[in-house]
Amino acid sequence: MLVRVAATTDPFWRTAISRVTPGEIRVRGYDLVELIGRRSFGDVVYLLLSGDLPKANEGRMVEACLVACAEHSVVAPSVDAARFVASAGVPLQAAVAAGLIGLGDHHGGAVDDTARAFLETAETGKPDREAALETARALKAAGRRLPGYGHPVHDPDPRVARLFDVAGELGLRGRWCALAEALEAVTEEVFGRTLRMNVDGALAAILLELGLDPALGKAFYVIARPPGFVAHVHEEQTRERPYRDVGWQNVAYDGPDPRRLP
Amino acid sequence: MLVRVAATTDPFWRTAISRVTPGEIRVRGYDLVELIGRRSFGDVVYLLLSGDLPKANEGRMVEACLVACAEHSVVAPSVDAARFVASAGVPLQAAVAAGLIGLGDHHGGAVDDTARAFLETAETGKPDREAALETARALKAAGRRLPGYGHPVHDPDPRVARLFDVAGELGLRGRWCALAEALEAVTEEVFGRTLRMNVDGALAAILLELGLDPALGKAFYVIARPPGFVAHVHEEQTRERPYRDVGWQNVAYDGPDPRRLP
Amino acid sequence: MLVRVAATTDPFWRTAISRVTPGEIRVRGYDLVELIGRRSFGDVVYLLLSGDLPKANEGRMVEACLVACAEHSVVAPSVDAARFVASAGVPLQAAVAAGLIGLGDHHGGAVDDTARAFLETAETGKPDREAALETARALKAAGRRLPGYGHPVHDPDPRVARLFDVAGELGLRGRWCALAEALEAVTEEVFGRTLRMNVDGALAAILLELGLDPALGKAFYVIARPPGFVAHVHEEQTRERPYRDVGWQNVAYDGPDPRRLP
Amino acid sequence: MLVRVAATTDPFWRTAISRVTPGEIRVRGYDLVELIGRRSFGDVVYLLLSGDLPKANEGRMVEACLVACAEHSVVAPSVDAARFVASAGVPLQAAVAAGLIGLGDHHGGAVDDTARAFLETAETGKPDREAALETARALKAAGRRLPGYGHPVHDPDPRVARLFDVAGELGLRGRWCALAEALEAVTEEVFGRTLRMNVDGALAAILLELGLDPALGKAFYVIARPPGFVAHVHEEQTRERPYRDVGWQNVAYDGPDPRRLP
Repeated sequence: MLVRVAATTDPFWRTAISRVTPGEIRVRGYDLVELIGRRSFGDVVYLLLSGDLPKANEGRMVEACLVACAEHSVVAPSVDAARFVASAGVPLQAAVAAGLIGLGDHHGGAVDDTARAFLETAETGKPDREAALETARALKAAGRRLPGYGHPVHDPDPRVARLFDVAGELGLRGRWCALAEALEAVTEEVFGRTLRMNVDGALAAILLELGLDPALGKAFYVIARPPGFVAHVHEEQTRERPYRDVGWQNVAYDGPDPRRLP
Repeated sequence: MLVRVAATTDPFWRTAISRVTPGEIRVRGYDLVELIGRRSFGDVVYLLLSGDLPKANEGRMVEACLVACAEHSVVAPSVDAARFVASAGVPLQAAVAAGLIGLGDHHGGAVDDTARAFLETAETGKPDREAALETARALKAAGRRLPGYGHPVHDPDPRVARLFDVAGELGLRGRWCALAEALEAVTEEVFGRTLRMNVDGALAAILLELGLDPALGKAFYVIARPPGFVAHVHEEQTRERPYRDVGWQNVAYDGPDPRRLP
Repeated sequence: MLVRVAATTDPFWRTAISRVTPGEIRVRGYDLVELIGRRSFGDVVYLLLSGDLPKANEGRMVEACLVACAEHSVVAPSVDAARFVASAGVPLQAAVAAGLIGLGDHHGGAVDDTARAFLETAETGKPDREAALETARALKAAGRRLPGYGHPVHDPDPRVARLFDVAGELGLRGRWCALAEALEAVTEEVFGRTLRMNVDGALAAILLELGLDPALGKAFYVIARPPGFVAHVHEEQTRERPYRDVGWQNVAYDGPDPRRLP
Repeated sequence: MLVRVAATTDPFWRTAISRVTPGEIRVRGYDLVELIGRRSFGDVVYLLLSGDLPKANEGRMVEACLVACAEHSVVAPSVDAARFVASAGVPLQAAVAAGLIGLGDHHGGAVDDTARAFLETAETGKPDREAALETARALKAAGRRLPGYGHPVHDPDPRVARLFDVAGELGLRGRWCALAEALEAVTEEVFGRTLRMNVDGALAAILLELGLDPALGKAFYVIARPPGFVAHVHEEQTRERPYRDVGWQNVAYDGPDPRRLP
């Protein structure tokens, strides 16, 4: 049976991001060829995400954020997943994709939540300290954690002060960075111990300083991590034996005893 | 700038697999609703892959193969990847996808290669033992392994004899199973030690008995593993703490010593 | 620099699902080899997800649900994604994984939500109709949709009645199916038009009849769709030209006009 | 049954890429915090892939290559896959992963192959033109295409001349760029028409100028594309209706006619 129906008259894809015609690729209106070698990757990332080239130092700030997220060794489940998958004999991009999937709610995901918490805190219109106290107390009362603060390994997270210093140098350390610090300052009073801002918290503040949509919170990780994933996949496939295996001897089994089919 | 160009007059998608119209879903011509509850999942898998419902016991054979591949615990990099990713807080289907990516060349991938080796062996037109010797010797001379034979943990792989018994019971133990055994029988002579058929080798023989395209060799794993992935992802997300981490103390680093920026 | 630290004394993986030792694979205590050819794929899925083999017809019900979800043609974004990716020249399992990722909140995701809605409705302890009215009204008041009811193409969704008939034949049409119908019955009164149960709603009811965790709602799709994905990937890679492209002429661009670098 | 076996005494992970300790993250020996804001993303990509910071302009060259690959609109199956998956309601990173999977053999994959062809051509030790003729003729005799030359839309591919100009400005336009041009120069003689170098061919030459492993050929795309994927996923999820669907009316079905179950 052959069934052919008239195609839709609407074009299937619609986009405001870029346009390809023979011999020309335009990104948000700019000729890609003009961008090559003249604009940094950070500028182009900012162009893609915000719709415009930086007016000032936004591209350099983006690069600093990408560098801050670029690598965290095998002490991250996403990297471990990429290496396991790589060991099974898959193409580079597929192994990186497996790692990327792992940038979940508990792994870089706090940037969105923190940015939203900052926005809600600011919307109260109150002075930073007062607003910060309200936000922190409301979270505590709801039995929830303050996203973007506290880190299981780093205390303080060394990337935070550096990112804020760079933001200052680049003229991008404004009200959101101040609000982020105000929240840190009230953690001891509210939670009984100082919860220092972690890299996700700092990225959330900078995301807002850059004027980007909070829904793009995870974008820094999604864009920054692939080089690290590539390095780990390559190392796994060139230095280690195929089919990484923990060994059946090293598995603790606590399920049902051996049994016969009923 | 708004650019709209006339849409193509060709329908974008073309398929011979199924057809959806309001109130009806037909798969290879059959009404999906009639299949529900009347045909096994194995029958429908066979229908999707071959284009027709089984003439005999092919669906039961498919089910036996799926059961044989359904679970191999955490002693498989694909499962480990799925669990790492799951621990990072991602939706069920995304964690399963990360595991699935790991069904690579070294992880179920031997089925395609073995099926092709069987086909090439058979194409010689020689008696099984003679043809098997030729194939094994040619691989050895090329410094390559015999795909589908040998297993790092199981010797023999207990799934093999059982799958062949089931094939026998179902009337599907034919020339390809015989050829697979002929190859096993010559391994000691050619490689100096007995290389027993593993589950991939058995699946390759059965794939050909079922008349399926060798390019579908990995299909058994791709279809059979998701239930195991689901169980592991669920266990990870309900029994373990989020963000599975090996601990920085347990990582061996053998890269460059600490150094200052140049 | 070589840094080696003593490994943790805890085994890295812990699982109650299965145990692999040389020559033996046990799934929830049962020997996998005994399961092959003796138990259906549906039984093994139920074993993996629930921890036990079916006491009655649960495995057959699982198979019916899997068949109901197995294929929905290219009228599903997940399948379209798998075909696009397949056209770019990737291994079978990677293309299927791309499709699988697409089983998101709007694509099979309603099963979890619906199952939770059923549970909350039942927890009121009120008669079905009364409880159903409360649930429907509460959703309407919150401006939310009733998950599991209504379908953009099928009205009614032909899979629903068939799945419930099969559940009846198998002795699994109990209180949750009744509650699902009670909810359908109040939709006209609450929402102003009849919203018929769709396949997600029916699967949610059956999930609860089977005693499975509502968090496994998406499991039916995750397990059932791979054969269809495999068929579509294979068709794409064997019947179509590589690198599926909509054609630059068919893209509507509505972004910024061409502009020069600032 | 609880089975616990002594853990392996070997550390599970071994890496030369980076080392995390409390308060410090070192990448190839350098303090990540020192890199933030002082080194470009391109420098850090080069550090991760090559093991060392650039001696000269390698980082700027990497940035130019990343910019060249950053966006190609919806005229690429990978982007289409990401948008379909995004429309189904999945997290940002998962949708990007689906797109990434699509950077397959026909989609950026030519970089590896072209780099290897360049290396083999150079290994002949013959003058460029003579060696190029040999390579091209050998491919033609084998019925194969010359990877990295020819493009379905762009003729010439505008990115090529620009990338080579930038390489020249940065002192990185050496023997591999010359060899790439020598190959282009012989295409008319060998294949009967001029096959112009495409962006993959140019990237392959630059990959070798940078001294990177040809196995990393796809790394430029894997690292460069995520910002574009992020922009498309965000646009899909903020501008378009959920569940992108081609519409059942627009599908051409050419499979079996409706038929009854046997």
